[in-house]
Amino acid sequence: MMGIGAFSPLERFMGREDWKSVCDEMKMIDGTFWPIPITLSMIEEVAKDLKEGQEVALIDGENKELMGIMVIEEKYRIDKVYECKQIFKTDNPQHPGVFHVMSKGEVNLAGPVKVLSEGEYPKRFKGIYATPEETRRLFEEKGWKTVAALQLRNPMHRSHEYIAKIALEVCDGLFIHQLIGKLKEDDIPADVRVKCIDVLVEEYFPKERVIQKGYPLEMRYAGPREALLHAIIRQNYGATHLIVGRDHAGVGNYYGPYEAQEIFDQIPRDALLIKPLKIDWTFYCYKCKSMASYKTCPHPDENHLLLSGTLLRRMLMEGSPVPEEFSRPEVIKILKDYYQSL
Amino acid sequence: MMGIGAFSPLERFMGREDWKSVCDEMKMIDGTFWPIPITLSMIEEVAKDLKEGQEVALIDGENKELMGIMVIEEKYRIDKVYECKQIFKTDNPQHPGVFHVMSKGEVNLAGPVKVLSEGEYPKRFKGIYATPEETRRLFEEKGWKTVAALQLRNPMHRSHEYIAKIALEVCDGLFIHQLIGKLKEDDIPADVRVKCIDVLVEEYFPKERVIQKGYPLEMRYAGPREALLHAIIRQNYGATHLIVGRDHAGVGNYYGPYEAQEIFDQIPRDALLIKPLKIDWTFYCYKCKSMASYKTCPHPDENHLLLSGTLLRRMLMEGSPVPEEFSRPEVIKILKDYYQSL
Repeated sequence: MMGIGAFSPLERFMGREDWKSVCDEMKMIDGTFWPIPITLSMIEEVAKDLKEGQEVALIDGENKELMGIMVIEEKYRIDKVYECKQIFKTDNPQHPGVFHVMSKGEVNLAGPVKVLSEGEYPKRFKGIYATPEETRRLFEEKGWKTVAALQLRNPMHRSHEYIAKIALEVCDGLFIHQLIGKLKEDDIPADVRVKCIDVLVEEYFPKERVIQKGYPLEMRYAGPREALLHAIIRQNYGATHLIVGRDHAGVGNYYGPYEAQEIFDQIPRDALLIKPLKIDWTFYCYKCKSMASYKTCPHPDENHLLLSGTLLRRMLMEGSPVPEEFSRPEVIKILKDYYQSL
Repeated sequence: MMGIGAFSPLERFMGREDWKSVCDEMKMIDGTFWPIPITLSMIEEVAKDLKEGQEVALIDGENKELMGIMVIEEKYRIDKVYECKQIFKTDNPQHPGVFHVMSKGEVNLAGPVKVLSEGEYPKRFKGIYATPEETRRLFEEKGWKTVAALQLRNPMHRSHEYIAKIALEVCDGLFIHQLIGKLKEDDIPADVRVKCIDVLVEEYFPKERVIQKGYPLEMRYAGPREALLHAIIRQNYGATHLIVGRDHAGVGNYYGPYEAQEIFDQIPRDALLIKPLKIDWTFYCYKCKSMASYKTCPHPDENHLLLSGTLLRRMLMEGSPVPEEFSRPEVIKILKDYYQSL
């Protein structure tokens, strides 16, 4: 993310003062707006032999590839419970973001990074993986003045289609931007999701107005603060608007349903160029005879088609019919094939 | 419009220099952005006895009510063909705006106006007529930070509902703002339109998110320049966004379908606070199984429900069924009753 400019203007892992200032005030010490610390953490046993001023290699833990080199400018300890409370509003280790932070060491190394490789992404997600420079060029070639980014980590059902089309009605182009970083065990793999989106765009969107790409971020589930990080990333990718849904980047009941939308009104006006498109929960309403949300439909929930993820998974695994008001048949076919291949 | 602050900051009929500067550069000589001259025109025979410095009464031509008084600061002749070409991009008298300008005299009186009456509107359109001060207070009471205004001079069919709901998905409130100024002969009267909108809001919108009001403007059909005037008016009424449709305020083929949208990108950035929500032509698509527009639907027109105004009027007069994908049955009922009462 840092190497391809997706975290621009960040070119280093943060030092203590930036870490503290980001935790407390969502900005770095030079005043740059930033909502979540970007740090390199390790356990004391590893850190103890590393000294400030030293140049170190950054190696991918899984395939041992050399990813970059860093000059250690600073080595410091952090209060991880404090970080979690500030960023996630909780230190409950059942929160996956808290668990992730707590599972790392409490020593941070800071310094400028020279990136040498983009890892497996360009090859593994050929055609989907893209750098900010590439998408900015694409948007410019298309002549889009306004581009709405849709953050996605699921297949697109009709509620996502509806949200995407609202954005497309008011913007020149739609940028479907998938997470292709590491996922939870039971998530649908990126290649299946890409296929679902491809068929949906092919059949139900004006293709020339949609670009689907992916980016290598892992979810932190930090709700409002993560929505802001997603906004910075999309700004770097060249989008002018980010669709922010109900409980965007949330998990469990740690955040209020609109907290990730409201935070955009609480930050300084010049913090971001990108604007949020705030959309409520969406569903098919049998009275409106259309997709709708709690902002546009007055009818009680008994008229709404709301399926839980668990129920949908069961329907797909069992091969039972999924209502076409919930998902396009072309998408359901791909998902059924996937679940039945497991 | 001037007296209730709907033309704010304008408090006078424009003098020659403002008239010229508005025609040429869409701004007044003090730099205030303004797209269409607001002038008091009369024929030479009437003007010849009026002198600069004199105070005159402004009388409603129809019911002879005293509307206001004005001190004549300036009396000047204008080149009306020039005005028409600048404002309407044509001097063809078949254009209703051109016809209107050409049918008035070529002497303009300029000066500050003291408004004494709002005319018949407050009484005749009780509950619908509202001043900018009133709607601003309403929006504030509702706590709406973003308000989308929908300019309307027709009953609301499903395509208007769709446009309105797109706006409502991305804004806090919807401001349905009807023209209740003078209309063309075959237009549907304002009270019938108000009833249609009331029933639509009652049955298909979350009522607490919608305010319906009217304002006493006459259409000029000046396309792009009039879209900008509509935007200024809605800004004065407290809206943050104006829905600008395809060929907004256009007539015949005098303007390109997107000209009224594109002009918002051509004016200085600080000319307006209100932002356009640019929406394309909308329709029901039998393949998408939903409302859509050319921006969101890839299917050819044979899948789209497009009814001309003429055909719809015939269906309503004859009492033949109108597809529910075109208009809600509750709205059609009111329109049928009206047409059959003629």
